[in-house]
Amino acid sequence: MTTQPATAPEPWRDPAADPGERVRALMARMSLREKLGQLYGIWVGIDSGGEVAPHQHDFDDPAVDFDDLVRHGIGQLTRVFGTRPVDPLIGAHSLARTQRQIVAGNRFGIPAVVHEECLTGLAAWQATIYPAPLSWGATFDPDLVRRMGARIGETMRELGVHQGLAPVLDVARDLRWGRVEETIGEDPYLVGTIGSAYVAGLESAGVIATLKHFVGYSASRAGRNLAPVSAGPREIADVLLPPFELALRAGARSVMNTYTDVDGVPGAADPALLTELLRETYGFTGTVVSDYFSVAFLHRLHGVAADRGDAAGQALTAGIDVELPTMDCYGEPLLAAVEGGAVDAAAVDRALMRVLRQKCELGLLDADWAPEVPEEIDLDDASSRTLAREVAEKSIVLLHNDGTLPLSPGASIAVVGPRADAPGAMLGCYSFPLHVGVHHPDVPFGVSVPTVVEALRESFEVTYALGCPVTGGDDDGIAEAVAACASASVCVAVLGDLAGLFGGGTSGEGCDAADLRLPGRQEELLEALLATGKPVVVVLLSGRPYELSRQIDRLAAVVCGFYPGEEGGPALAGVLSGRIDPAGRLPVSFPAAGASQPSTYLAAPLGRRSEVSTVDPTALFPFGHGLSYTPVTWADVSATGSLWPTDGVCRVRVTLRNDHARTASEVVQVYLHDPVAEVARPERQLIAARRVSVEPGATVVVDIGLHADLTSYTGRAGRRLVEPGEVELRVGTSSEQIVTTLHCTLTGSRRYVGVERVMTPEFGS
Amino acid sequence: MTTQPATAPEPWRDPAADPGERVRALMARMSLREKLGQLYGIWVGIDSGGEVAPHQHDFDDPAVDFDDLVRHGIGQLTRVFGTRPVDPLIGAHSLARTQRQIVAGNRFGIPAVVHEECLTGLAAWQATIYPAPLSWGATFDPDLVRRMGARIGETMRELGVHQGLAPVLDVARDLRWGRVEETIGEDPYLVGTIGSAYVAGLESAGVIATLKHFVGYSASRAGRNLAPVSAGPREIADVLLPPFELALRAGARSVMNTYTDVDGVPGAADPALLTELLRETYGFTGTVVSDYFSVAFLHRLHGVAADRGDAAGQALTAGIDVELPTMDCYGEPLLAAVEGGAVDAAAVDRALMRVLRQKCELGLLDADWAPEVPEEIDLDDASSRTLAREVAEKSIVLLHNDGTLPLSPGASIAVVGPRADAPGAMLGCYSFPLHVGVHHPDVPFGVSVPTVVEALRESFEVTYALGCPVTGGDDDGIAEAVAACASASVCVAVLGDLAGLFGGGTSGEGCDAADLRLPGRQEELLEALLATGKPVVVVLLSGRPYELSRQIDRLAAVVCGFYPGEEGGPALAGVLSGRIDPAGRLPVSFPAAGASQPSTYLAAPLGRRSEVSTVDPTALFPFGHGLSYTPVTWADVSATGSLWPTDGVCRVRVTLRNDHARTASEVVQVYLHDPVAEVARPERQLIAARRVSVEPGATVVVDIGLHADLTSYTGRAGRRLVEPGEVELRVGTSSEQIVTTLHCTLTGSRRYVGVERVMTPEFGS
Repeated sequence: MTTQPATAPEPWRDPAADPGERVRALMARMSLREKLGQLYGIWVGIDSGGEVAPHQHDFDDPAVDFDDLVRHGIGQLTRVFGTRPVDPLIGAHSLARTQRQIVAGNRFGIPAVVHEECLTGLAAWQATIYPAPLSWGATFDPDLVRRMGARIGETMRELGVHQGLAPVLDVARDLRWGRVEETIGEDPYLVGTIGSAYVAGLESAGVIATLKHFVGYSASRAGRNLAPVSAGPREIADVLLPPFELALRAGARSVMNTYTDVDGVPGAADPALLTELLRETYGFTGTVVSDYFSVAFLHRLHGVAADRGDAAGQALTAGIDVELPTMDCYGEPLLAAVEGGAVDAAAVDRALMRVLRQKCELGLLDADWAPEVPEEIDLDDASSRTLAREVAEKSIVLLHNDGTLPLSPGASIAVVGPRADAPGAMLGCYSFPLHVGVHHPDVPFGVSVPTVVEALRESFEVTYALGCPVTGGDDDGIAEAVAACASASVCVAVLGDLAGLFGGGTSGEGCDAADLRLPGRQEELLEALLATGKPVVVVLLSGRPYELSRQIDRLAAVVCGFYPGEEGGPALAGVLSGRIDPAGRLPVSFPAAGASQPSTYLAAPLGRRSEVSTVDPTALFPFGHGLSYTPVTWADVSATGSLWPTDGVCRVRVTLRNDHARTASEVVQVYLHDPVAEVARPERQLIAARRVSVEPGATVVVDIGLHADLTSYTGRAGRRLVEPGEVELRVGTSSEQIVTTLHCTLTGSRRYVGVERVMTPEFGS
Repeated sequence: MTTQPATAPEPWRDPAADPGERVRALMARMSLREKLGQLYGIWVGIDSGGEVAPHQHDFDDPAVDFDDLVRHGIGQLTRVFGTRPVDPLIGAHSLARTQRQIVAGNRFGIPAVVHEECLTGLAAWQATIYPAPLSWGATFDPDLVRRMGARIGETMRELGVHQGLAPVLDVARDLRWGRVEETIGEDPYLVGTIGSAYVAGLESAGVIATLKHFVGYSASRAGRNLAPVSAGPREIADVLLPPFELALRAGARSVMNTYTDVDGVPGAADPALLTELLRETYGFTGTVVSDYFSVAFLHRLHGVAADRGDAAGQALTAGIDVELPTMDCYGEPLLAAVEGGAVDAAAVDRALMRVLRQKCELGLLDADWAPEVPEEIDLDDASSRTLAREVAEKSIVLLHNDGTLPLSPGASIAVVGPRADAPGAMLGCYSFPLHVGVHHPDVPFGVSVPTVVEALRESFEVTYALGCPVTGGDDDGIAEAVAACASASVCVAVLGDLAGLFGGGTSGEGCDAADLRLPGRQEELLEALLATGKPVVVVLLSGRPYELSRQIDRLAAVVCGFYPGEEGGPALAGVLSGRIDPAGRLPVSFPAAGASQPSTYLAAPLGRRSEVSTVDPTALFPFGHGLSYTPVTWADVSATGSLWPTDGVCRVRVTLRNDHARTASEVVQVYLHDPVAEVARPERQLIAARRVSVEPGATVVVDIGLHADLTSYTGRAGRRLVEPGEVELRVGTSSEQIVTTLHCTLTGSRRYVGVERVMTPEFGS
């Protein structure tokens, strides 16, 4: 093979030329093997010497000879920063060297797209660790999440990373699923609007957002990771797909498939999903990347492919453009399948066109492209930490309070529990320390993560006792915590999860739960603390709701932090002390003990009744619930009129007044109830939410324009429709706390609506 | 209105005339109101004076004036014998009088069809109470179940009952569902073959079998009664529908809808299900009756109908011919809807044609029809009890045995636990005593139901202690049982469920479970018994599997009886003593503790792997498992050849030898494993099972002819297909205990198959 200089003045290198023309010109010159080189990733990591080297992963896949492979070109570099702690500046230089090696190695001088995980911030050492997605949902604040996404994107750009494997747009369906912590919640509107905001932010920094997992993963049977999905087309259309539709409008340029099969068809081999729906209906023009190893799974686990070549052919034909993390199927197996005629070469060209078009957009095909490394890199600068703090503070949900909170200034506090003094308690499973910790448990966190104990010590006299670990523990530990509690004026019990991966935790990918009891002996600890008679405040740091109903009547207060990120400790201390007035709202229901899963608030009336079953699905804390220290007063709720054209807008106005001496926040929530429809619909469903703050003494009018498209649903014929007839707009502070019900009549013609429909409300000033 | 004498020599009364002609001639003379009269039931019961009177049910539906209604005619009489204990002979006479009143009351002299529940035998006072359906499944003996169905049918005929609301053909999908006890198990082949046998039996006695619930009920979300069903068309076609297809072939003449919605569409309003599939595809010509109140639920709970008239119109148009139990929607509301033009009168005629055709077949339109009452009635005669005993004996499953069973002849036995001395422990929720017990808890059982304690006292020295009730209980009770255990040589702990309805039990309709822990304090009792160090044998009398894995390593033996019916006590005593050699096999898996629901053995490989999730779905006792005291020896397993035409038969031969001195039984099970298919398929699925008994010293060859249609499944295109390629036939004694795997190659063309396909194996001599 002759290597040509990468600086050849080819027409396809001209940034001024038409991108389509450039890509076609380039493709015409490429061999099949070179084409395939662009359609897979190579998993590399930076080794202890600061050099990029192939990453040894756990599966029995072929070894990779990186130096040999570069001659074919390399489509993507997988997780360069994600496998061990590396100084970011050293890492960026190492990546730049590797890119230069790739450019020099292939005939056309094409660099790789570099992708990384970025769910709780860039999953690299020393990068800011933001709250996990349940906390994003709890903020009900898309603009804040957009700013966070933008900052994350800027960080990635600094390091030379082009694509981020976030956000997760799966709508939580079963709280036992370990990846619930990665979701934004159980409501499609909330997941869609918050997820889109993240996408808009990341993409505004020039980084490709990857929507995952398309589609169905969260509905895995019994919440078991990777288990089959039982779902019909209507549930998929009305619950699971809307967040993807919204996020594509927000500019996401990549999509990742689900591992699961839906009604028997694995996502990675489903042309109806990846091509007909995504491309032809939604008009998506970006790239589809495979979830790690999911192409090989078609052969090894789904049993729909006879071998890796067959798996590659099915995935490629269905619409997977790029195999990640490595080349198990799209390398030699796909080469043989295409050469042998089993797979159409046109399918290769279709995927390649998309990949090269994206590289073209990223400037990677330009003649003057070269990796750039800044002189200094601080991935956790003050502005990032401030932003992480803001997200944390706005996400904390005060679930219950008998007046014990805020804590009295002079209180002596016993802070106990397995999550009280554990930095890891703040972090979701996709944070760098926990994600890489699977292989390197001794890795230093790289960023400062103050614990609840440390943060409370800033303001209070604190006694600390562990009580018990998240799992396991002994009687002595519990006795020690009880003693600490008994000698304090108030007890703060910080309970919850150990986030982890594949069995390494109680929440996180592969860490599913059989039920919603607090892990280990934590409930026992809590009972022992309550037995002291001292007021007990529970702070929950967890990846999913847990049962609290056996204790709720005896608890002084409950604060839910989910995983609030590196600034979570100070944020929680702020809420406990009263420095921060909490206004987070639940993105997922807290079921009562004795309830069962799957169950979300999106249930039809027959699915919500308690008298037909001994299992009562009524939530302890419903979707949307959250308290504040200074609740605003709802002065008035009105609609512009009770008639609402099926192609028009109904305006809802809510007047809020703050009678307190400090700024107050509220999340105004609008739920739709449709009493008669072609199919059974949820008793109530969120169609608008607005977080507002009201200055002391001020009055604010929240003005919400609701297009009739927001009432649409998938009817009998499988098409989405807006029907004339009566509906109710239930306006309130949670899905169960309705302040006013507005009765409206949709008038005019029945309309079918498609992907062009209005999906979000307009908000006035 | 002029009433004509019922004896008018109308041509439609001539039994020799063509039934279609007769029905058309009759319909031509009927008013709309008279037509509607044939399309609903009236719920009556026999009151304390032995007279039929309208039954006051729980819902807020219109009161019924029976004497006024008879002038329109009455389609069905609902549950005459089912609402209170009544001497069967008095009841039969009362019913006959009522039929004469109906005949005299309407212009055409048409009597009502009388229907009753008959799931565990006719649900009437003093009728034999047979084992519940899980026990039928455990027998793996269709011929036995056919004989039971025939005997039940004969009983019903004696009383003047025409239609039985059984069998339940729902395939168990989530063991938390309260109605799992009413299912035959978790496998479509087992449910289909055993259910069909019941149908064939009942229909052989001239009684209409009613297949329920068409379709999806068992997949209610989280196993909650009536909750929505998330399922795609492939799961419905391959798991939920096959039992209905088989039972229709067996001659069932009625079908009842599911209460639930599937992917938003309520069963009672689904024309695709009730008309396109059932009538047009399956060719069904009988009647579709509504599950009780489910037409009204379209308005009240599903929110798909604006009022009762709308609900009636939707149900009728979809294909519900008869509203049960009463006339809430098909009475005045439907009359108004048809007269107002909202519902097509042709839909009324379509349903009426089916109803009258069935009445014609039953002889109810014949000129000489008159109710007959025998001189004596014994609903629980010796032959019925013998049959009930045989079903019970053949259904008991020995799950685990360290050699403690059979009990030594001279053993002193402590029999403890809430189900040890409770006659109700033997009965499923649809037995008369428990079903009517919802309203009349003090009703005497009407038949003798010996308990385990009573039966064991026939052969052993027995000490009894309750320990604790099924739910609740106190420390003293547990201490008493522990004391009894400590002073005996072996302890038999009889644990399980209280079957009931709507909150009245721990299993049964509306009695769903949040998890699979033994109800109440029974696990605590069991631990206390084990702490004595005495051998503990658990006898489980329950409507679903419960977790036993925390104790299994310490238990001497476990016997599962499900609900074995009125002869269950002696049957269980027979197994414990060794008089009976158990050969029942599990129709449902027993999950291990820490597993979660829904989960059945019908999972694709990805749904069965334990390493991808902290929740391990591996069963403690798998589907098909069961031990015997005298296991047969598997001498040889072979196939006629490894090539299997896609339109041909593969014969499997299993040679069994009995080396013991008593007759031995085995259930030979054949599971299909298809390594590569168009869609993800279950890792293994039962396609044949044969229960055989082998005389002492004898050798038996089980010869099984497997048509390639048995390998069919619903492919990508939504059509059922047989594919060429490799498959495995795994032949063994349970879904996990495979004796021999036969490798076969399906050869020839890919074929699409439909309802005409071969669905059961041929068995040779």
